[in-house]
Amino acid sequence: MDKLKILAFAGSTRKDSYNKQLIRLAAEVFDDTQVEITVIDLKDFPMPLYDGDHEGANGLPEKASELKKLMADAHAFMISSPEYNGSFSAVLKNTIDWTTRPGAVEGSVYQGKPALIISASPGGLGGLRGLRHLRELLGNLGVLVVPAQHAVSKAHEVLGDETSSEELKKILTPMVAGFVEIVKKFA
Amino acid sequence: MDKLKILAFAGSTRKDSYNKQLIRLAAEVFDDTQVEITVIDLKDFPMPLYDGDHEGANGLPEKASELKKLMADAHAFMISSPEYNGSFSAVLKNTIDWTTRPGAVEGSVYQGKPALIISASPGGLGGLRGLRHLRELLGNLGVLVVPAQHAVSKAHEVLGDETSSEELKKILTPMVAGFVEIVKKFA
Amino acid sequence: MDKLKILAFAGSTRKDSYNKQLIRLAAEVFDDTQVEITVIDLKDFPMPLYDGDHEGANGLPEKASELKKLMADAHAFMISSPEYNGSFSAVLKNTIDWTTRPGAVEGSVYQGKPALIISASPGGLGGLRGLRHLRELLGNLGVLVVPAQHAVSKAHEVLGDETSSEELKKILTPMVAGFVEIVKKFA
Amino acid sequence: MDKLKILAFAGSTRKDSYNKQLIRLAAEVFDDTQVEITVIDLKDFPMPLYDGDHEGANGLPEKASELKKLMADAHAFMISSPEYNGSFSAVLKNTIDWTTRPGAVEGSVYQGKPALIISASPGGLGGLRGLRHLRELLGNLGVLVVPAQHAVSKAHEVLGDETSSEELKKILTPMVAGFVEIVKKFA
Repeated sequence: MDKLKILAFAGSTRKDSYNKQLIRLAAEVFDDTQVEITVIDLKDFPMPLYDGDHEGANGLPEKASELKKLMADAHAFMISSPEYNGSFSAVLKNTIDWTTRPGAVEGSVYQGKPALIISASPGGLGGLRGLRHLRELLGNLGVLVVPAQHAVSKAHEVLGDETSSEELKKILTPMVAGFVEIVKKFA
Repeated sequence: MDKLKILAFAGSTRKDSYNKQLIRLAAEVFDDTQVEITVIDLKDFPMPLYDGDHEGANGLPEKASELKKLMADAHAFMISSPEYNGSFSAVLKNTIDWTTRPGAVEGSVYQGKPALIISASPGGLGGLRGLRHLRELLGNLGVLVVPAQHAVSKAHEVLGDETSSEELKKILTPMVAGFVEIVKKFA
Repeated sequence: MDKLKILAFAGSTRKDSYNKQLIRLAAEVFDDTQVEITVIDLKDFPMPLYDGDHEGANGLPEKASELKKLMADAHAFMISSPEYNGSFSAVLKNTIDWTTRPGAVEGSVYQGKPALIISASPGGLGGLRGLRHLRELLGNLGVLVVPAQHAVSKAHEVLGDETSSEELKKILTPMVAGFVEIVKKFA
Repeated sequence: MDKLKILAFAGSTRKDSYNKQLIRLAAEVFDDTQVEITVIDLKDFPMPLYDGDHEGANGLPEKASELKKLMADAHAFMISSPEYNGSFSAVLKNTIDWTTRPGAVEGSVYQGKPALIISASPGGLGGLRGLRHLRELLGNLGVLVVPAQHAVSKAHEVLGDETSSEELKKILTPMVAGFVEIVKKFA
């Protein structure tokens, strides 16, 4: 059987983003005999803020087309979502909104695909509140967001420390394995 | 007594946005002997997508500073929020996120102020789902979003028709009056 | 292969409940060569309001034990949820809470199972707001609530009329078929 | 001026409920020269699970009538909400649902009144997720739930210890004072 393709990204463009660190760390946990995981950086997929007039005049931005093709090719998604003001980032919402617009590929690149959502923040709740909005947003697109999720609180302490990072990987391992079992069913 | 200052805007930059039409229509309903309502267009307040590195290097964007000053000066807000994929627009989230960042004015421009939220969409629910996320987002900032709200479904039919628009104004009138009573208490 | 077992119920105990009518109607839509669907009435599973002292003194109520066994035996759930004050009913929450308490069967009767949620109400939104809370509640229990859902507005007109009911069945048919495909994967 | 009347209760009937302990502790923090706070125990207001047939046959239960009168008499509410399965308790939902039904007093006992919501739980999040559903539920009734809230995590450690309880009171004091300022505006 071909490997399962999972597309992973953080909802941040900041260079040293905790969520970028987390998505890379979580990607290491996948069993690479079964899964081909591609971690992309939204910094490499710049898009203008969505505006219907812009879309009417110029169609889908080049980077949105490129991303839609990657998404269409993936069996599932893993997203690490920073929390700003208790919700997802504008850059994540913007990316998702553009990639739900027509163009580049036929139909929805989201509908019926499983997703795993995680988050990291320096605060005590780890970005948990933002995951709720993201879960609903993805659900609205027909994504099957799996019930399991993980929010890394005090991210600066955890992700900057090797021992803590290894412990975090141990927490993520069964969650990721459970996710892969679900992705298999839908691939 | 000085007039109450209310800052109003739609979460869309599209020229013919239903939510821009709705916010202008709702603004007409306020009693201008008591209220000075300023309707702004987010198109005039362009900001880059929020990125911590950009902020670190350049500080608050000029237009975010300008908007924060307007917001600091307002007693209350009225926002008409388009719904994309069941949530608020990226441009609205981006504007709100930047205006919660330090700079231009002291402290929060949101904390403790009342807000009225409305929406319009061509669909049957009128953008109702997006209002939930917006209500939570503003609540996270300490905004007192009043319980009353209104979602205009089939916006293309309602806002494009004079009779329907007049009927809509009649629906909005008591809601706006109730909102003004609350704004008075907090001004 | 054995048939898929789906347990279905409405979150209401009222005799002529729209949601009871809807759950029976939706049950008719399933392909009975593949699925064995059991529709139960929560009226037949009376439980006291959950109270930790009551549980400590008396353990799991008899009807909660009975229901947990039915749930443990099911591959998936279909719930039709009335909306009271924009959220699920107390009787539904109470039933779910008791059936998450220890006793009668080993482990969770919810974890990892798919669910389809629907609703009916006389109002214009069909109980849509209540479905959001129910979706989150079930997600908290590890239930895979499928993204597709249906809210029947003006339930008194639709469910009381034969032609409208037949049309409703046509709407439910592809949704139910899609749900069954997902249940198969997890059975 | 007459004192502000605040009605306070926990959403639990358990004798040693953390939320009952929390509501009593929070009640002590109010300035009793300005506020007359009445803490009631829902154990003293038993009601059957809401059922439209029961209501049709018997009208409003006696204890619901009694509670509605207390609520009608209050300027504001303070509720401490236990979290079961990530949402409010069935007993709280049931109490709220019955008290929104017609009878005993004219009109809504909720509409336009401020409320403060708090929670306690032995877990790490303190019942935070349940507060979200409660906030929305009360908002649906026209209650002005103030943005400030507090969730006491590790409630068994905090509420059972005198020093920790005193520290908690210090945290609650400015929140309660801010709430009273808002209640004054609406009284």
